[in-house]
Amino acid sequence: MPEVSTNGRGSVSEIFQLLRDGSPHTRAELAKHTGLARSTVAARVDLLMRMGLIAPVADGASTGGRPPSRFALNPAAKIVVAADLGASHATIVLTDLGGTILTEYSEPLPIAAGPDRILAWVVDGARRLLGELGRFEADIAAIGIGLPGPVEFPTGRPVNPPIMPGWNNVNVRGWLREHLDVPVLVDNDVNISALGERTVAWPDVDHLMFIKVATGIGCGIVSDGRLQRGARGSAGDIGHVRVSRGSDVACACGNTGCLEALASGSAIARDLRAQGYDAADASDVVDLVRQGDLTAIQAVRQAGRDIGEVLATSVSLLNPSVIAIGGSMSRAGEHLIAGVREVVYARSMPLATERLAIAQSAAGAQAPIIGASMLAVEHALSPEGVADAFVVA
Amino acid sequence: MPEVSTNGRGSVSEIFQLLRDGSPHTRAELAKHTGLARSTVAARVDLLMRMGLIAPVADGASTGGRPPSRFALNPAAKIVVAADLGASHATIVLTDLGGTILTEYSEPLPIAAGPDRILAWVVDGARRLLGELGRFEADIAAIGIGLPGPVEFPTGRPVNPPIMPGWNNVNVRGWLREHLDVPVLVDNDVNISALGERTVAWPDVDHLMFIKVATGIGCGIVSDGRLQRGARGSAGDIGHVRVSRGSDVACACGNTGCLEALASGSAIARDLRAQGYDAADASDVVDLVRQGDLTAIQAVRQAGRDIGEVLATSVSLLNPSVIAIGGSMSRAGEHLIAGVREVVYARSMPLATERLAIAQSAAGAQAPIIGASMLAVEHALSPEGVADAFVVA
Repeated sequence: MPEVSTNGRGSVSEIFQLLRDGSPHTRAELAKHTGLARSTVAARVDLLMRMGLIAPVADGASTGGRPPSRFALNPAAKIVVAADLGASHATIVLTDLGGTILTEYSEPLPIAAGPDRILAWVVDGARRLLGELGRFEADIAAIGIGLPGPVEFPTGRPVNPPIMPGWNNVNVRGWLREHLDVPVLVDNDVNISALGERTVAWPDVDHLMFIKVATGIGCGIVSDGRLQRGARGSAGDIGHVRVSRGSDVACACGNTGCLEALASGSAIARDLRAQGYDAADASDVVDLVRQGDLTAIQAVRQAGRDIGEVLATSVSLLNPSVIAIGGSMSRAGEHLIAGVREVVYARSMPLATERLAIAQSAAGAQAPIIGASMLAVEHALSPEGVADAFVVA
Repeated sequence: MPEVSTNGRGSVSEIFQLLRDGSPHTRAELAKHTGLARSTVAARVDLLMRMGLIAPVADGASTGGRPPSRFALNPAAKIVVAADLGASHATIVLTDLGGTILTEYSEPLPIAAGPDRILAWVVDGARRLLGELGRFEADIAAIGIGLPGPVEFPTGRPVNPPIMPGWNNVNVRGWLREHLDVPVLVDNDVNISALGERTVAWPDVDHLMFIKVATGIGCGIVSDGRLQRGARGSAGDIGHVRVSRGSDVACACGNTGCLEALASGSAIARDLRAQGYDAADASDVVDLVRQGDLTAIQAVRQAGRDIGEVLATSVSLLNPSVIAIGGSMSRAGEHLIAGVREVVYARSMPLATERLAIAQSAAGAQAPIIGASMLAVEHALSPEGVADAFVVA
């Protein structure tokens, strides 16, 4: 095969994609896996080291003055900013390229305060946290943002978000880039929670569903290792699927019998109030369950069955390996999950369930912020992200 | 940026991926889009032309003796073999790399005849059709096979297929490669039908569901432009989702109230027989509908509503742009689809349905064979497939 010249951007990325998982490789291994010439590999490794994206790894044994032989991703090379902007609370963190949280700030902040106030909070927070770490804006590789509503991912714009007045169609990415000129990724909080859950508990699983059960109900879907957003970003929006119990229960959406109107934390609290309990919201329901109140436990288990009805269909449709149940209602413990399991295992085909795990979220309240950082890290380490850095370097 | 040597396999593939859609490009355009040096592009274009994978495209105006300036995929460079092995009927075709069918053979052949007999039929058929075209085994780029049961796609092995005695866990790929040494892709007939439908009618749609309604009911899912198979290959297996009507109807799976037990062609025929009709199967139901029999029309419309109930959940979960209804029951015309639309539009959220098309399959009975050929073409034109050809060339 003739050896010919190339500007080699493709080969830099190819080498980096092998090193990004953190396990060290030698130049010979990199040449073998990429099919690139040894001389090309040597030049690319030097370039990635000068960029700081990879670093030599100690071999244990002394190299006796020889140049380092093994390399891996250098997680400290860049910083990622992640923000989880919830209905009533906001969190911002800085992580390294390995997704490790370096510093964190959180405060009560209603999303209804509007985009100008909230996004300014993100910019100010990022700068303050950078200062704490002694790092600079030039160190930021990307920003990941989670919002509590539907987002058109390619443009980063919220689409008719019900609990976010003033945010519809706002150019979140453009707003932030006027202040911090780095790539910005925006997604809804349930999607990024699926990424966060996968990172924390199921890194080798390519087919996972994350169900958030709180004031509302929604899910994030990872299939073939990729987040599924659907044609308009509304994939996973299962809160308004009709369930067989209570077809006459009115939902805020205008329909009747929706999953959310029966099995969300608010719905359970409403039903308990009708039975004379003092339960304002999901949090009160969880408290009653933890106190061992039988009526509350039965209500939560029935909610699990309703959710299980929708998930049984989801299992037939998507054949996931893992269903993780998160959101504030998941703190009610095994009762919710027991109801889900009861119906899913009764209603799905053996091939789809024989290796299916249905488990409580391991990432818990951290799921969205870890997911937002992974969204940014994934971009920074992608061929596209490395090419961006390459142009800058 | 320094120019250094590389073996260039990556850059050949990069150039080819730009040319494979069939639209012609100049060397300058290829250099611009890939970021490769002009000299590299020139060498790669020469190599791909020697391999026959691309060919010059006439410019209209005379080039006055200058070398050709624009290039595109040469669909005639290789042949693809596709076979659709149905419950009672088998079809084999040869196509070019553009997916155009060059020659076709079809005959009644029950899949229950077993793998040795059926796969020998594929090998013999491929050889005979090649002979007809005056082509050779060395011209085959890949083989795509569709089977009427669940298939573990990475290994190409059927997994407990209910109507395929003798096929469980058979190494279909290995069997065929002993006789025709080219890449073999095996998938179930509904998955490949989704590919076929997309190719024929919705080439620019990245989120599509294909529903097959015949003796059974199943669906193939394309999300983000990729076929979704799930963790164990059972994604799309919606025949045994419970629907609200008739929770006491027994299904062959051992459960009750399954979609297939209520809305498949066999289920409708069974219900019509109970009302005194002479309807043995789906085909008789279609005939009655075409004759304008009101009871049959009402039964088909209700089946559409049952299917719509499952699809409404699917729309919330996956947010597709297109739902195509195929299989023998779709020949009953608009009655089935009217029932589907009625329920999906009533039960799904506006964001998910405002741009959703629900349409009869345009590919019809051709969907699986076109899909099987696309499975093989996609592999042949992928970076991996081109690398295979590159090693051989």
